[in-house]
Amino acid sequence: MSGTTDGTLSEFELIRRYFSGRDRGLGIALGLGDDCALLAPRPGHHVAVSVDTMVLDTHFFADQPAAAVGHKALAAALSDLAAMGAEPMGVLLAVTLPEVDEDWLREFAEGMGELADRLRVPLIGGDTTRGPLAISVTVLGQAPSGSALRRSAARPGDLVVVSGALGGAFAGLQAELERREAGREPPLTEDPVCQRFFRPEPRLALGKVLRGRTRTAIDVSDGLLADLAHVCEASDCGAVLQADALPHDPLLAEWTPGAALAAVLSGGDDYELLFAWSARQRDELRPLASALQLPLTVIGEFTAGSGVQVLDAGGSPVLPAERGFDHFGRG
Amino acid sequence: MSGTTDGTLSEFELIRRYFSGRDRGLGIALGLGDDCALLAPRPGHHVAVSVDTMVLDTHFFADQPAAAVGHKALAAALSDLAAMGAEPMGVLLAVTLPEVDEDWLREFAEGMGELADRLRVPLIGGDTTRGPLAISVTVLGQAPSGSALRRSAARPGDLVVVSGALGGAFAGLQAELERREAGREPPLTEDPVCQRFFRPEPRLALGKVLRGRTRTAIDVSDGLLADLAHVCEASDCGAVLQADALPHDPLLAEWTPGAALAAVLSGGDDYELLFAWSARQRDELRPLASALQLPLTVIGEFTAGSGVQVLDAGGSPVLPAERGFDHFGRG
Repeated sequence: MSGTTDGTLSEFELIRRYFSGRDRGLGIALGLGDDCALLAPRPGHHVAVSVDTMVLDTHFFADQPAAAVGHKALAAALSDLAAMGAEPMGVLLAVTLPEVDEDWLREFAEGMGELADRLRVPLIGGDTTRGPLAISVTVLGQAPSGSALRRSAARPGDLVVVSGALGGAFAGLQAELERREAGREPPLTEDPVCQRFFRPEPRLALGKVLRGRTRTAIDVSDGLLADLAHVCEASDCGAVLQADALPHDPLLAEWTPGAALAAVLSGGDDYELLFAWSARQRDELRPLASALQLPLTVIGEFTAGSGVQVLDAGGSPVLPAERGFDHFGRG
Repeated sequence: MSGTTDGTLSEFELIRRYFSGRDRGLGIALGLGDDCALLAPRPGHHVAVSVDTMVLDTHFFADQPAAAVGHKALAAALSDLAAMGAEPMGVLLAVTLPEVDEDWLREFAEGMGELADRLRVPLIGGDTTRGPLAISVTVLGQAPSGSALRRSAARPGDLVVVSGALGGAFAGLQAELERREAGREPPLTEDPVCQRFFRPEPRLALGKVLRGRTRTAIDVSDGLLADLAHVCEASDCGAVLQADALPHDPLLAEWTPGAALAAVLSGGDDYELLFAWSARQRDELRPLASALQLPLTVIGEFTAGSGVQVLDAGGSPVLPAERGFDHFGRG
């Protein structure tokens, strides 16, 4: 049910308070409190839907500030809408909690609610359940029929473009792990160095702008190589990347070149968008990046064949780093 | 992401196999394998969405046949669509698993897939994640704009009608608990006596038929009294039930009258539909029930005021049983 499966209305009510009470957004015919929420997508639009689950010890630390857990759970889910070029309509939140920890729940809801309000995503359903801590976020969005970005339409000769910088989330996680290794107390708020890991930003504005300008995008959640491989597989093509072109997060400045490259290629969790771009439109990237205030970097091109190759400045293949760090022992 | 958040493609693939591979149903523009699924609701329709989470030890037993877990997780979620009068479009399945237990997963997927195929609900997204066993099911459906059944439109004088019989799920759970108490081995398949608890049937056909004939319905998941109270609260009215009119599940035949009444009023998990019905249309119930091959019983009426009263044959109030058994210690 949409609101109160287990009679834990008060817990869900507590969460709800941090969402400005707005469950009747544009396109929401019925919000919280019934068996289902009802969406009224615009005529000629498709509804995009995705679900993302975050589990304690697999995706976040027990002593991690709860606000960051709330932020990231929503951000990761919204990133899937961004990757489709869909505009968010609403979110459903299923929280499983071992016990009523009002402080944790309040902080969690605050972190998620802050992002939801900033991006104008109403909370339209969900529930709280008793059990081991886990968060399942369902996001819904809309995009004009036929215009949603898929993984399957990259063509040989298209440029491979990525937004922002890569490796920052991985660097942030490493900093956090080192801090823990050193036995230091968990901080009440996150270290700014860890922001890219704890507080990713879904690239919704970019996704919307890409719609109509390209047909292929994915978000970089598993890692650049892994996600690019998903696109290549779905599009039945290959890709070649130029190692020197890859945008490194500033946090990697002090890293050895090999470690930095590995973080950029396989770190994951950056939630940037990776997309195909017609070579003829190359000149349009700069004004687009400028309008969005977000770097858009050509890092290679799609090719006939299959698989992803990374070349160094001399044109020699770089040994592919392992695909995606198993940082939380997950998978 | 829609398919493979944690790279556990093979596990999700294993689940998928039991859904006839149909992820491109009517109204599905894009199924599995991209960042989101895309739905194409019919013009003039709203999209109904709900999420339901089932957690080990809270909602099901560790040694319970996994097929029943799969069946019930989907049935409970679809019941929310039934309660809105929405026709199912698709389901997203987020499974959290402590380890790869292929046998469990196969049986689980088989149980869920069987129901999904019978009701023609395609699997359009979801993922598998590492962590304590839990299942989160997101269902999507559609209904003509303005026709979805809500909780909020019951009016004093409307009849209170319930489908099927009540208390059977509770009786089934009791039988199962007694079997466990007696230390008997868990059976490989469920006892037929427990079917109403383990294998509820979402009343989708009824919900669809009710659309246009009434504006108010809810599914009986928390228990008759609790769910009727939800309707009364949302509709700003009260209700009076006739104890003698309540349809008892045959499993309660040997129970004491008091225990049977408590099971009927508060047992929960029956997933029948409870709806408001204009007194003027009373004669239409019988042919409807006959067409659906499902009993539809007038059990009382909505009243001015608030709260739910239960009257015995002599018109005296029956002491309300506690609202909803806390059978799994949940809530």
